[in-house]
Amino acid sequence: MAIITLTSDFGEKDHFVGAIKGAIYSELPDVKIVDISHSISPFNIPEAAYIIQNAYKSFPKGSVHIIGVDSELNEENKHIAVTLDEHYFICANNGIMSMLCNEIAPDKIVEINIHDKIQGSFPVLDVFVKVACHIARGGTLDVIGKTIDTIKPLKNLVPFINEEKTQIIGSIIYIDNYGNVVTNIKQSFFETVQKGRDFEISARNNKFKTVFSKYSDVVNFEIPEDKRHDEGRGLVVFNSGGFLEIAVYRSNPTTVGSASSLMGLNLMDTVSVNFVATPLVPKGIESVSAFQDYK
Amino acid sequence: MAIITLTSDFGEKDHFVGAIKGAIYSELPDVKIVDISHSISPFNIPEAAYIIQNAYKSFPKGSVHIIGVDSELNEENKHIAVTLDEHYFICANNGIMSMLCNEIAPDKIVEINIHDKIQGSFPVLDVFVKVACHIARGGTLDVIGKTIDTIKPLKNLVPFINEEKTQIIGSIIYIDNYGNVVTNIKQSFFETVQKGRDFEISARNNKFKTVFSKYSDVVNFEIPEDKRHDEGRGLVVFNSGGFLEIAVYRSNPTTVGSASSLMGLNLMDTVSVNFVATPLVPKGIESVSAFQDYK
Amino acid sequence: MAIITLTSDFGEKDHFVGAIKGAIYSELPDVKIVDISHSISPFNIPEAAYIIQNAYKSFPKGSVHIIGVDSELNEENKHIAVTLDEHYFICANNGIMSMLCNEIAPDKIVEINIHDKIQGSFPVLDVFVKVACHIARGGTLDVIGKTIDTIKPLKNLVPFINEEKTQIIGSIIYIDNYGNVVTNIKQSFFETVQKGRDFEISARNNKFKTVFSKYSDVVNFEIPEDKRHDEGRGLVVFNSGGFLEIAVYRSNPTTVGSASSLMGLNLMDTVSVNFVATPLVPKGIESVSAFQDYK
Repeated sequence: MAIITLTSDFGEKDHFVGAIKGAIYSELPDVKIVDISHSISPFNIPEAAYIIQNAYKSFPKGSVHIIGVDSELNEENKHIAVTLDEHYFICANNGIMSMLCNEIAPDKIVEINIHDKIQGSFPVLDVFVKVACHIARGGTLDVIGKTIDTIKPLKNLVPFINEEKTQIIGSIIYIDNYGNVVTNIKQSFFETVQKGRDFEISARNNKFKTVFSKYSDVVNFEIPEDKRHDEGRGLVVFNSGGFLEIAVYRSNPTTVGSASSLMGLNLMDTVSVNFVATPLVPKGIESVSAFQDYK
Repeated sequence: MAIITLTSDFGEKDHFVGAIKGAIYSELPDVKIVDISHSISPFNIPEAAYIIQNAYKSFPKGSVHIIGVDSELNEENKHIAVTLDEHYFICANNGIMSMLCNEIAPDKIVEINIHDKIQGSFPVLDVFVKVACHIARGGTLDVIGKTIDTIKPLKNLVPFINEEKTQIIGSIIYIDNYGNVVTNIKQSFFETVQKGRDFEISARNNKFKTVFSKYSDVVNFEIPEDKRHDEGRGLVVFNSGGFLEIAVYRSNPTTVGSASSLMGLNLMDTVSVNFVATPLVPKGIESVSAFQDYK
Repeated sequence: MAIITLTSDFGEKDHFVGAIKGAIYSELPDVKIVDISHSISPFNIPEAAYIIQNAYKSFPKGSVHIIGVDSELNEENKHIAVTLDEHYFICANNGIMSMLCNEIAPDKIVEINIHDKIQGSFPVLDVFVKVACHIARGGTLDVIGKTIDTIKPLKNLVPFINEEKTQIIGSIIYIDNYGNVVTNIKQSFFETVQKGRDFEISARNNKFKTVFSKYSDVVNFEIPEDKRHDEGRGLVVFNSGGFLEIAVYRSNPTTVGSASSLMGLNLMDTVSVNFVATPLVPKGIESVSAFQDYK
């Protein structure tokens, strides 16, 4: 049974998502429809790119992913369908796919050209659903569009690295439900540059010298629970998507605060990593993490 | 396989929606359940009416739509089931169905009378689920209620038109995820009154002389992209539901602002259309749109 | 066909929930996945406990419930799977299950021990999904963990009762979508203590002498509709989950206000019930309710 996923900036309240599901079931009663997110900030391409990149891999090969962000058709915003990593993506050619295509080369990209047969002012409902159901039924991309070679790029997506390879300058591309800030610095890239060197991560006036593998690594479990003060402490992890993330332990954006609110970090802000040639501390003395404390 | 949709003001956090789905699957393991919206403002009948009207048509004929807004049973708020346009609706008789019944005559309305067999203080879970599963199994409305002729009307639903037919006075019935404001003036009604005449749309101190067919029609693509200033411009479209909508191009209520916030337009505010007997501009000169600019 | 439900604090925006669903469908294409809530306040164990307790019962026996709140594995936060009331629950041993286990004795609890076979920093995706699919396929708990006897308790869960049995001191454990405040005082417990006596419920400076069976019982339908002023009136009900709840009639937290905002009642606040030995009013005269009025 085919799977069609939905990612959009339609929000949770309006009728758009319900209407799209109804249209899909009208064409394909046995398909499975899965919401990835409908709470992308309006017209926010990088957010959509980040979310689809992190979600799609968990789905079975052959899944069809509809992305409804900034999808109104006009002469500068064409519709495309992309085959990549044995998944199908349907979206506007507005940069959403460039983050993913940067990592994995697409197998095929077509510019959708069935619009003259479709009337309507709601392209995700009118066009994307038609294309998705066509693919879910096993149809080929050639029937619904003409092959193109390149897609529109997304600016400022890849972190900068200096010539001496002593510094990575990245930026914040996503702020999650816990207010943790995600950078565009991937673990694989970080480690390739690091080559075992010590480092200091800077974001505004916050400095970190350790990247954890999980959030609760910030806790010293040898201290009795009632004497610990770890909630609210800043830390850095590689998150489950493999991105370097600045977090606050047990944060809550609406009560105690979060990495974003407590450290004043926002989308597009710079996060830099400085590598040092020699270890910061003599051998035999363990590296000490210098977390900010926000209690 | 039958489809049951859910529309409510239960919100995304509480257990109500999950409990309802569990109850449906307990009765009908093979049904498909589709959320239309659970973020209706609490007790807001017009919002619920607008959303269900725009969503239901995309679903296959025979779908069953549960609407859980202001549904507590009491002597003034009876429960009804309605057949209309080959769809089934289950809700309280509180006006929700009057917007839809205004457009399309219902085939049958019954007042549900199975309550004496059901104990419980959560009518959507206790009563609506029972009725929906009964219908989804192919049961008739006569078994679960007695036929009634009329339903409770919703006030101020239809726009006013003056005797000379030179003015439509409508109102704002919905504000969507992008902060765009939707009026109760439908395209078909507008065009019947317009008869090709020029017009001016007024909402507070905002004036518009063009209705677009899509949002990006506001953009002049002949101007180079880096010299355009279209984001934040006001415009009017007939939206995908066919309603006259005042929008802001690429709005975002939480950042750059929206039609609602930038133009100060709220639910129930008046939007008027004034038609002129003769074209405003001589023939041969194209009508110029006079958009408000909110940059 | 098995059902797996999801309850978490992942929010509606991030990719986490989509990724989890993709992983489940990759293992079990025919399972049904039902969202209970993803809007639990971050790391809020009592909220999660309240929601899962009220939702699970509606699902068919044999359903598997994944609870992803504060689930990062560490030496103080182990993962457990619990069989209770013919349902399966998978979560961290952080108190979430103690509210439920307080009411119904669990049939079996195991501490999950399959982590050495799983790599990954997202335990709900990596571990809970694996365990849920194992159970949904009919697997036993013994394969995925070792039996334990007790689970971590949640503090301040049960209301206090004085020695003379004239007073119950409860607390607010949940605030719902309408801003109504839910206490930890269950109807069955209340009635066991009450033994038919009159009572006064106090929450801050709000007093109530009646508990309704539904919200609109606050309305006197003999008064003509246009002369009533019931919207915004405070009242007490036993809600559909059987908990004593302080509500405001037709509340809306973002417009007219709610029980929480209008009465100044917050999570963990005290709500007390004082019972009187003799009826407050002579026989023959009906008890008068003394509602606060917030118009």
